[in-house]
Amino acid sequence: MLEPEQIVRLEEDRVVLLDQRRLPDEEVEVECLSAADVAEAIRDMAIRGAPAIGVAAAYGYALAARRGEDLDEAERLLRSARPTAVNLGWALDVMREDPSPDAARRIHEDEVERCRRMAAHAAELFAPRTRALTHCNTGGLATGGYGTALGAIRAGFERGLVERVWVDETRPRLQGGRLTAWELEQLGIPYAVIADAAAGSVMAAGEVDCVLTGADRIAANGDTANKIGTYSVAVLASHHRIPFYVVAPTSTVDADTPDGEAIPIEERPAEEVSSRFPARNPAFDVTPAGLITAIVTEEGVHRPPFSDSLPRPISIAQ
Amino acid sequence: MLEPEQIVRLEEDRVVLLDQRRLPDEEVEVECLSAADVAEAIRDMAIRGAPAIGVAAAYGYALAARRGEDLDEAERLLRSARPTAVNLGWALDVMREDPSPDAARRIHEDEVERCRRMAAHAAELFAPRTRALTHCNTGGLATGGYGTALGAIRAGFERGLVERVWVDETRPRLQGGRLTAWELEQLGIPYAVIADAAAGSVMAAGEVDCVLTGADRIAANGDTANKIGTYSVAVLASHHRIPFYVVAPTSTVDADTPDGEAIPIEERPAEEVSSRFPARNPAFDVTPAGLITAIVTEEGVHRPPFSDSLPRPISIAQ
Repeated sequence: MLEPEQIVRLEEDRVVLLDQRRLPDEEVEVECLSAADVAEAIRDMAIRGAPAIGVAAAYGYALAARRGEDLDEAERLLRSARPTAVNLGWALDVMREDPSPDAARRIHEDEVERCRRMAAHAAELFAPRTRALTHCNTGGLATGGYGTALGAIRAGFERGLVERVWVDETRPRLQGGRLTAWELEQLGIPYAVIADAAAGSVMAAGEVDCVLTGADRIAANGDTANKIGTYSVAVLASHHRIPFYVVAPTSTVDADTPDGEAIPIEERPAEEVSSRFPARNPAFDVTPAGLITAIVTEEGVHRPPFSDSLPRPISIAQ
Repeated sequence: MLEPEQIVRLEEDRVVLLDQRRLPDEEVEVECLSAADVAEAIRDMAIRGAPAIGVAAAYGYALAARRGEDLDEAERLLRSARPTAVNLGWALDVMREDPSPDAARRIHEDEVERCRRMAAHAAELFAPRTRALTHCNTGGLATGGYGTALGAIRAGFERGLVERVWVDETRPRLQGGRLTAWELEQLGIPYAVIADAAAGSVMAAGEVDCVLTGADRIAANGDTANKIGTYSVAVLASHHRIPFYVVAPTSTVDADTPDGEAIPIEERPAEEVSSRFPARNPAFDVTPAGLITAIVTEEGVHRPPFSDSLPRPISIAQ
């Protein structure tokens, strides 16, 4: 598997990241020479995944500080690169207090460490011979190392509990069919990619024991924004009485957002869906708390009602 | 719009059909010189859609008869080209009694006429300013002319009742994003293509008033096999209390299949989903009768319980 610094790192005068748009066909790096370059890499999804774009933004801010860029402008560019994931803003709040490379590296190390802790908590949810279904990519690529929902699946597989994985291909950008499949192949975990529209069919066939996804923002009441299609999978899981777990770090919990209605949903270019015809392309949807069996963070397994059970997010004051 | 004979027709020594694999980029025809060629065109989806492959099989059988082919072998090839849609077998049952070109053309004309009649029935279901969602392609291309669910939408638009259409792109073969969008563009009906995984999101936003799909086989109890993803859309529609209508000719009703469990589901090549990673590719799923608000055939609007309300299929004895 990739080391964290292969996914994203700060060098003397640049932020270097693995270009996730070109995986699995090519492993090439993108070099960002300014905060604006990092913001563009985030916007265009060279790096994606809520925790990973938080880490990239932290490195971008540290680079801007080292280069003597206008830090207010750097922050504005990075913060607005993508609107839905709250980790971006969270990382920049931390960096504003200490814009050093070490602070950015600490955020990166902390994210990976949090992933390992939440994976250990989530692994306790698996019964033997679990067949898990997941949507989008929530592995090392999405988090700068290890992974959230996919990290949980990895930990469950290492404990001999997870037997195989259904991978929603996750149109339009195919993060499942390109990135999750690539990571599972490297991890040696049995899996099969399916069209997103086939998830209901494999559930109806009794071939799914639980669903795990990541999150881009979790509101104070537990409503969860995540990659488009997550809501459909949650409704289907509920219909089939299959547990639906959200696995995400506390940096994804946004105490300032009361519920899902208040989460901004990014509308991405229609061309990602169709190069020829009119299209709508909401990049995220909101899964109401009522459809979520448990939310797993590095602090543990949180059950409804989430407004009571969710941990306070880590703040810069801590 | 295309005339029925542009979609599929019998010429002196060949069956000619529009190659739907290459739409919307190119309008090219495939020439089939034998029943085996027609079976291959059906298997590889140069022509697809339950009613349309029934029509193509009828022409293929008539061609085989004219060429002096072994008709048992021709029938076997055509009947096994795709397993789920019952129209194929139905058309061949008719052709066995009369293998003439005129009999095949009558099947074709009858399918188009049935589409017009079911569309008129279905149009009565629309309230003013309806925003309809549809899955896969059920237009002229799928039926040899006019269409089933898309025919109903067309009739509803002509009556001023349908305002716009959400088009599921319908992975992996993109019949929605390629074919339905192409037909709606020609018809001048406002629409937007969405990723299949976005259907739940537009429903949750209150932007869908009803869902219409076609069918590949309707069991005696109303359980309906249709393009993979139809079941997911039906569960989502039920969750949002949105009416879910199946529009299909009586030639799609299979009185010999008691329920959905008995419908064979075609597994297509994994490469259609992923050229690089292991994949599963069920081409159809089964929507239980309990999720279907009404089934519309050329005979009228049929409500649950469908075992009582569904018309007997047209048999060769009639």
